[in-house]
Amino acid sequence: MIDLALVKSKLFTSVISDALDSIGVRNQAMRPFVRPLDDNAVMVGFARTGLYAVRFHAAADENPYEVEIALVDDLRPDDVAVFACHGPTERIAPWGGLLTTAAVYRRAAGCVTDGLARDVRQIRALGFPVFCGGIGPIDSKGRGVMVEKDGLVECAGVRVETGDLVFGDADGVVVVPKAVTGQVIEAALRKVEAERHTSEELSRGAPLAKVFARYGIL
Amino acid sequence: MIDLALVKSKLFTSVISDALDSIGVRNQAMRPFVRPLDDNAVMVGFARTGLYAVRFHAAADENPYEVEIALVDDLRPDDVAVFACHGPTERIAPWGGLLTTAAVYRRAAGCVTDGLARDVRQIRALGFPVFCGGIGPIDSKGRGVMVEKDGLVECAGVRVETGDLVFGDADGVVVVPKAVTGQVIEAALRKVEAERHTSEELSRGAPLAKVFARYGIL
Amino acid sequence: MIDLALVKSKLFTSVISDALDSIGVRNQAMRPFVRPLDDNAVMVGFARTGLYAVRFHAAADENPYEVEIALVDDLRPDDVAVFACHGPTERIAPWGGLLTTAAVYRRAAGCVTDGLARDVRQIRALGFPVFCGGIGPIDSKGRGVMVEKDGLVECAGVRVETGDLVFGDADGVVVVPKAVTGQVIEAALRKVEAERHTSEELSRGAPLAKVFARYGIL
Amino acid sequence: MIDLALVKSKLFTSVISDALDSIGVRNQAMRPFVRPLDDNAVMVGFARTGLYAVRFHAAADENPYEVEIALVDDLRPDDVAVFACHGPTERIAPWGGLLTTAAVYRRAAGCVTDGLARDVRQIRALGFPVFCGGIGPIDSKGRGVMVEKDGLVECAGVRVETGDLVFGDADGVVVVPKAVTGQVIEAALRKVEAERHTSEELSRGAPLAKVFARYGIL
Amino acid sequence: MIDLALVKSKLFTSVISDALDSIGVRNQAMRPFVRPLDDNAVMVGFARTGLYAVRFHAAADENPYEVEIALVDDLRPDDVAVFACHGPTERIAPWGGLLTTAAVYRRAAGCVTDGLARDVRQIRALGFPVFCGGIGPIDSKGRGVMVEKDGLVECAGVRVETGDLVFGDADGVVVVPKAVTGQVIEAALRKVEAERHTSEELSRGAPLAKVFARYGIL
Amino acid sequence: MIDLALVKSKLFTSVISDALDSIGVRNQAMRPFVRPLDDNAVMVGFARTGLYAVRFHAAADENPYEVEIALVDDLRPDDVAVFACHGPTERIAPWGGLLTTAAVYRRAAGCVTDGLARDVRQIRALGFPVFCGGIGPIDSKGRGVMVEKDGLVECAGVRVETGDLVFGDADGVVVVPKAVTGQVIEAALRKVEAERHTSEELSRGAPLAKVFARYGIL
Repeated sequence: MIDLALVKSKLFTSVISDALDSIGVRNQAMRPFVRPLDDNAVMVGFARTGLYAVRFHAAADENPYEVEIALVDDLRPDDVAVFACHGPTERIAPWGGLLTTAAVYRRAAGCVTDGLARDVRQIRALGFPVFCGGIGPIDSKGRGVMVEKDGLVECAGVRVETGDLVFGDADGVVVVPKAVTGQVIEAALRKVEAERHTSEELSRGAPLAKVFARYGIL
Repeated sequence: MIDLALVKSKLFTSVISDALDSIGVRNQAMRPFVRPLDDNAVMVGFARTGLYAVRFHAAADENPYEVEIALVDDLRPDDVAVFACHGPTERIAPWGGLLTTAAVYRRAAGCVTDGLARDVRQIRALGFPVFCGGIGPIDSKGRGVMVEKDGLVECAGVRVETGDLVFGDADGVVVVPKAVTGQVIEAALRKVEAERHTSEELSRGAPLAKVFARYGIL
Repeated sequence: MIDLALVKSKLFTSVISDALDSIGVRNQAMRPFVRPLDDNAVMVGFARTGLYAVRFHAAADENPYEVEIALVDDLRPDDVAVFACHGPTERIAPWGGLLTTAAVYRRAAGCVTDGLARDVRQIRALGFPVFCGGIGPIDSKGRGVMVEKDGLVECAGVRVETGDLVFGDADGVVVVPKAVTGQVIEAALRKVEAERHTSEELSRGAPLAKVFARYGIL
Repeated sequence: MIDLALVKSKLFTSVISDALDSIGVRNQAMRPFVRPLDDNAVMVGFARTGLYAVRFHAAADENPYEVEIALVDDLRPDDVAVFACHGPTERIAPWGGLLTTAAVYRRAAGCVTDGLARDVRQIRALGFPVFCGGIGPIDSKGRGVMVEKDGLVECAGVRVETGDLVFGDADGVVVVPKAVTGQVIEAALRKVEAERHTSEELSRGAPLAKVFARYGIL
Repeated sequence: MIDLALVKSKLFTSVISDALDSIGVRNQAMRPFVRPLDDNAVMVGFARTGLYAVRFHAAADENPYEVEIALVDDLRPDDVAVFACHGPTERIAPWGGLLTTAAVYRRAAGCVTDGLARDVRQIRALGFPVFCGGIGPIDSKGRGVMVEKDGLVECAGVRVETGDLVFGDADGVVVVPKAVTGQVIEAALRKVEAERHTSEELSRGAPLAKVFARYGIL
Repeated sequence: MIDLALVKSKLFTSVISDALDSIGVRNQAMRPFVRPLDDNAVMVGFARTGLYAVRFHAAADENPYEVEIALVDDLRPDDVAVFACHGPTERIAPWGGLLTTAAVYRRAAGCVTDGLARDVRQIRALGFPVFCGGIGPIDSKGRGVMVEKDGLVECAGVRVETGDLVFGDADGVVVVPKAVTGQVIEAALRKVEAERHTSEELSRGAPLAKVFARYGIL
């Protein structure tokens, strides 16, 4: 069982990335085109994945939002909606103001998408953490449709499954696979401690060479 | 006759984009590489187009700013300068501090360019809405020249003519062709109303499925 | 001898770029993908170059930070660390919080890299000017290594040597080669004066055509 | 009713493109990343469209080829399989040797895809016209799946519907929408004639200026 | 011990790729920008890796070819030189006519590089299989230097170690890691057999649906 | 006075590129996206430059080919048409079959463009050397227009002026500035000789290390 409160207060994406590196799991940071709407946003939670397919028309008799609605209506507290559009893409903005309103009510932890977000002033006003591949006003209707929920997706270069632990902050987004969550958190907590000592010595003017020799981190 | 005051107070780019979609005009949102210099900027006005051509030297006997100067000196209140450089490009910054100063005096509504902007601190200080394809310090002289004004251009993927209605805000830039302006504004005003109801119900916890069934929008 | 205090108070990247243009040195502005972490940052100083090579594994017996540590430990006041990764790249974040702490102690003027930066909240809190090719949480270890210091590098499209004068602000980064520093500063100071007159006349409503005819700048 | 034999013997993509331009239908040439496997290939036929969606795993109980098989088994003489993968993409090679074998038996006219092709030596040996977005050995299974057949797709930048007329040769691929087929063929046949005269005069040394004045084409 | 003669006569890149997929090793096909200089080239052999670093000047006292010369002088029969330049890149052409001449004498099996090749007419005349990321006339001297030989590299998206089995043909390049060579060859030989049956039935007009149901491959 | 016959029989692009490197002129090879239509094409001649600007409509009263026609009608034997479109671009194909017919009559040496070429079967049939940035069927009319002839242009990354010496072959295109033509040809002829010796020794099995020590080239 993960102590989310502790994790939120002590850990952040770069130390999580280093901890993943230290156990040899090296491709867990999303590509840098995914950025927070608000650089002060901090997000930790459990992935709920949705996969989008491209469309070039909206069929008259189809509800293009059906799977998406099912996923959002099912969000639980601390869930992070991961909307995978095979981005970077400029074609669709799957996340916007209305989904944010619904997600906030359900106390979801945030949203990550390699597509675009829209209604970003409204999202910022609500203080909901959204990490996205860009900003644009266009609706997904007739351009893309969620075809699968809670399956295996790839988002901004990282494979994600429902239940993986997702971290987001000003440095980007990092995904910790379910299987290694405990191991990674433990290594990250240790590294945070060593970084604190390193930083203190450097701020007092100690040479990098000497401090690195002592703590072995940079 | 468009009531710009009403339009400015009620409408925004994403609802304009949806309204254009609803009448089947689907390629009116500029590509997301065009961003506001200030995310709080809101711009509504009528396009005044200028087309740039690439140059690799500044001919000694040529005033490279001639057409550009003519266009800016002719800006009227509520005009939006649309400077098309066939971007995204890193080669030229056709808009800067001095043009901004001139445009502010003429009460122009803003500038959109798929090239770069420069002197951005000065532009921000003046509070003039500029939506651009990037930021860079380089002058256009010897790199590009405006060769045509008030003609048909393509800017960040959208065809624009002088007189089209241009919306810009934190979600990007959307262009409404002259011919459909009234129809689009009407549809957008209706959608704003439906979104308000949808949002209220969602914020009280109503399931998306139910609210979508009632209002048909997302 | 350059009067850095005067330069800092009077000059900025776009006027430096114009001054370089005016003496025919035309490729000195870094590509726009290099952006300041903080748009209010202003940086002037002397380049200290480091060149990175790609790695796909961290050799067990190698200190991957050796050259980097030597360069940072040797930073002097007003030095600008220029970390060249042959960017744009998403692979490595060579600059982060600990290097910033060390550089602040040494009163370095800032950092420019065409790679990524990490720990950006910490860097912003320290107020240290960093201009980078993006943001990401991943360490350079096992991904890249500094192989040469104080040599000739290319960073974001500009050739830089240790000792060149580097300007950075909201418009980007411009590099003045050692050989032309005096000439460029002089030309830039003159242009600043002419821009001030031009701007004053434009803000009082003078036509661009007339003002341009008088001062010859835009 | 189109006389395909006449069309094949007289017309080619560049004259079809000009004919489309002449009636104001200007976005019908696929992007140049789509190339023939064999530069001598000539293809004319009627589109049969298939739309691919991205997948990141192959579900155990799913036949990933189901829709694809249905489309290929239903190919008729003179049909052109248009496999739209939202390319350019390097992820999947939806067309290969076995589908070619099946298509040859059904006397289909060719295949166009903005994805990759594989088994290209075999395809070339069979002499089947394939225009593709690249070449690669990887199967589509677990990477993509055809989700819709005979619907509206976008392939290499052009919207295509089942029944549109598709031309391919060394210059690329051009699509003639059903609604304008007759008009376009007629205009193209006229232009071919004028080009013949122009070419003859130019080959005898007539100045371009004079020949262009006479025939108005280039 | 691998029977290279059997492997060369029976197997090819697409079936090797499928065999790797079938055992869950899914990222072994190089990106499609790597193409053979001659589409009829077929190459099977064992990787000998070299890693390039970027340079922006040729130091006067340095032999920029030292590691490269050591690697080429050490090539043995059936070796494949894998020159990794972190491509796609346009900066350097590490392979050319003289290295080809040396490699042919040593009966090496071919060369793969994600950089450019030059002297391609000479290479084609010698019939030496080269798979490269493009063609260009520029020497590597002063632009890049091999810094490591026989280490772990990434070439066109695939990790390669000295000793891995490398296949190249008209469909591209696939790398089989040492550890799974036997398993992959076995699976590939089985699949070749099933493809032969499938192909025969399809060429006699059997429906894809039926043939796929019987052999389970496409 | 350049002996073009000697140059054509002895020299080629990669040795010209090395000769330019040897005198410190290092950016003269066009980017590799410019490729010959026929890999066996060899072209040597003097540049005649034309600069294209983007257009989004064809004005009714304008001859879009006026400058282009003037340039082609003025081609002399051994001239190379250099059509600069600020490519890579997919928008226009400024060179095609009719211009080729006119150029062949005037005994021009070839054409280089960073735009597209069309009518490539016809061009190949005529045996005229064309080096282009791609192939596509679309006419330039309404998409681009030549605005300047015989001025300074940039084509595929290289600055070119009318009168520069242009080499093209299977390795790409290299431009020798007028001012250094004699010096470069002399250095290239010397290098060809040294390469011949190096190649002979390598083909007899001499170690690269030894041959490089003797002749100093690779």
